[in-house]
Amino acid sequence: MSTQPDPSRGAAVKATDRAHVFHSWSAQALIDPLAVAGAEGSYFWDHDGNRYLDFSSQLVNTNIGHQHPKVVAAVREQAARLCTIAPGFAVDVRGEAARLIAERTPGDLDKVFFTNGGAEAVENAVRMARLHTGRTKVFSAYRSYHGATAAAINLTGDPRRWPSDTASAGVVHFWAPFLYRSPFHAETEEQECERALRHLEDVLVFEGPQTVAAIVLETVPGTAGIMVPPPGYLPGVRKLCDKYGVVLILDEVMAGFGRTGRWFAADHWDVVPDLLTFAKGVNSGYVPLGGVAISAEIAATFDRRPYPGGLTYSGHPLACAAAVATIGAMAEEGIVENAARIGEEVLGPGLRELAERHPSVGEVRGTGVFWALELVRDRATREPLVPYNASGEDNAPMAAFTAACRAAGLWPFVNMNRTHAVPPCTVTETEAKDGLALLDEALTVADAYTG
Amino acid sequence: MSTQPDPSRGAAVKATDRAHVFHSWSAQALIDPLAVAGAEGSYFWDHDGNRYLDFSSQLVNTNIGHQHPKVVAAVREQAARLCTIAPGFAVDVRGEAARLIAERTPGDLDKVFFTNGGAEAVENAVRMARLHTGRTKVFSAYRSYHGATAAAINLTGDPRRWPSDTASAGVVHFWAPFLYRSPFHAETEEQECERALRHLEDVLVFEGPQTVAAIVLETVPGTAGIMVPPPGYLPGVRKLCDKYGVVLILDEVMAGFGRTGRWFAADHWDVVPDLLTFAKGVNSGYVPLGGVAISAEIAATFDRRPYPGGLTYSGHPLACAAAVATIGAMAEEGIVENAARIGEEVLGPGLRELAERHPSVGEVRGTGVFWALELVRDRATREPLVPYNASGEDNAPMAAFTAACRAAGLWPFVNMNRTHAVPPCTVTETEAKDGLALLDEALTVADAYTG
Repeated sequence: MSTQPDPSRGAAVKATDRAHVFHSWSAQALIDPLAVAGAEGSYFWDHDGNRYLDFSSQLVNTNIGHQHPKVVAAVREQAARLCTIAPGFAVDVRGEAARLIAERTPGDLDKVFFTNGGAEAVENAVRMARLHTGRTKVFSAYRSYHGATAAAINLTGDPRRWPSDTASAGVVHFWAPFLYRSPFHAETEEQECERALRHLEDVLVFEGPQTVAAIVLETVPGTAGIMVPPPGYLPGVRKLCDKYGVVLILDEVMAGFGRTGRWFAADHWDVVPDLLTFAKGVNSGYVPLGGVAISAEIAATFDRRPYPGGLTYSGHPLACAAAVATIGAMAEEGIVENAARIGEEVLGPGLRELAERHPSVGEVRGTGVFWALELVRDRATREPLVPYNASGEDNAPMAAFTAACRAAGLWPFVNMNRTHAVPPCTVTETEAKDGLALLDEALTVADAYTG
Repeated sequence: MSTQPDPSRGAAVKATDRAHVFHSWSAQALIDPLAVAGAEGSYFWDHDGNRYLDFSSQLVNTNIGHQHPKVVAAVREQAARLCTIAPGFAVDVRGEAARLIAERTPGDLDKVFFTNGGAEAVENAVRMARLHTGRTKVFSAYRSYHGATAAAINLTGDPRRWPSDTASAGVVHFWAPFLYRSPFHAETEEQECERALRHLEDVLVFEGPQTVAAIVLETVPGTAGIMVPPPGYLPGVRKLCDKYGVVLILDEVMAGFGRTGRWFAADHWDVVPDLLTFAKGVNSGYVPLGGVAISAEIAATFDRRPYPGGLTYSGHPLACAAAVATIGAMAEEGIVENAARIGEEVLGPGLRELAERHPSVGEVRGTGVFWALELVRDRATREPLVPYNASGEDNAPMAAFTAACRAAGLWPFVNMNRTHAVPPCTVTETEAKDGLALLDEALTVADAYTG
């Protein structure tokens, strides 16, 4: 299916990009973006004929792979019918998308407020929680990412917050469980869980629970490192929220819609949040879409009092059509189950096997098609392969590893001292094994920086 | 082209909507959304067979009308080729959209950062200005709307800000010119302009210009009332920005891409901002898209220092394909020129003629397909037909006017005591005249509340 290679076309595409496109999260003069010509399933390719196995799912959003025929057909059909309509109207595909999402979200999260993406979903969830409780402060974790608009970036617990930080934003950061680099000096998962909950309650009590509107947590933190929480943690957070009347917002923008091998990551622990944010996997990003699933109690707060938030493209028909088709295809084709099986039978065992042979791999953790390799200089000390928030020369080992992956035909997801193995939920056993073999090669480059 | 009426289908669509869709800016239990079945050009229709002339362009975004065949075809073609790709890559249609936009934006605004919509565009423009200047405060006008994410809603100068207001957000509101309700007790446009500039400079001086990163202004304020500024105002603001080293951000989310009869409203006064935000008309909202056009000087700030902002769907291929086709069709079909001509020859004269006959019309103002009627109880005192931010019984006159429009087959844009005549830029002379005739009917309902 690859288009014919055409390097001159690639050069032209890149020249126009460099002249006019301002890129996210980048020093504009220092980037050299790959010009992509096409994509299908777990692969994409450039204009020079290079093909990449997409172990990043782009930005961990193409859960259904590239160009899934059913979703493409649904987008095309909806485009012919009705591209756009204002959010104030009722329209078939918008209601149907909301219904299908509500059917799958945990508990009584049966109303859906649609946004264009994850950041706006978090913005609106926080607004709902503040107005529902009449409180201001919002808790979020270090080692987290919640988006780049003002409220969302202030909640974020990684260095992308720093340049946009507003100390007065009413956000309090706490530490969530992460046994491998335990903030609590714990030695077992049980200890980590117990101490993390104790820490969270201590911070709540010292901040004044009656001032806290919400706790926002990625159910499984994504870009920050795929730290699957110990079994008791999220039920424990739910209990704390109930005890203090705090709204629990689970951010499933990255973890939701199959990524962890369940429809929602919260399903692993049967935890029901008050608000659940989603984006990415809901329609694999074929059309920008995000949203908030809302509990009956919080929805009722806005039954007679207007909800003071909105956007022109809330419940965009084209985006909703893509969601309806994506959810339908995921259900019909057992894509969530595939993600779970690939995780259990291929990626989990395969990555652990790599860890045994590669001294640069400090830890393997994850579930479904959501895995992180923590790369280290020394397994005993757990010193990261590169320092926190490294750039330039300091980041050379990770840059070399990334380049080795790409040269081998694997497009990895890389953050700090980690690489994440996050292929589409549709990835086949053969593709997953191919990816492991390519990672095996590239890890020898990381190994050279150890010891 | 209308689909066959099917009231039971409409009832089902509405039932699903009420069960699962949480609506923007609404008290959820008090709304009764119209179930829309389809749309084409300047019209849309419901499942009961009612057809509406769309004098709102939805939320003032369908500048090219509903279901423009060239844009629909481009979306369908791009869907078949490549629905999504991460922002880090170069891709033909993203570069082409940026190039076409840069070609049309004023001055040296030659780089484009793409977002999903207007609010995110404003968020990112403000971030750029703050980092470029190293200053924090941002000025914006009362009677403005800039979006509903945290930074954008704090900039907004209408009641939608109140429930989400953060006094510490670093925003300072000032008064922009509005002769009909002059904040400066002016009697002529020249006086209003001079006093508005004097006021803005006074506030700047008293806030400390060295603490001010940016002034954000809708070139022509939209939802707040379509107050076309006096000729000297924006050039005067540009001079103040230059004098004090403040970044000028013109928000053209609503005014841009043909709405005022020019590609950008800034073109009316040959003013070149440092940053220009856009959304809506860029692709008529067929796929969610917004962005910031960036001057060479500000872009250079982020040449070697990473720009700390981004989003998964920045430069979304489907959205960019819609933009390329929209801009192409607008150019080929003279749609911007049509908007200008309809404004000068049909809407402007026609609305003024209505004002002569209807005592409820206090003022008519606008340009292109961007017109406001200020409805009043009394022309002499200029008392608004309903109080500021009225609801319930207080808002009965405007509710009655709105209902009369809809009953007549006209879908109006209504805000506070105003109705805006904002049809697509593609509106024909016949359609515009039909709309005026329907407005004529509905205004008799407003007239009943005067005197």
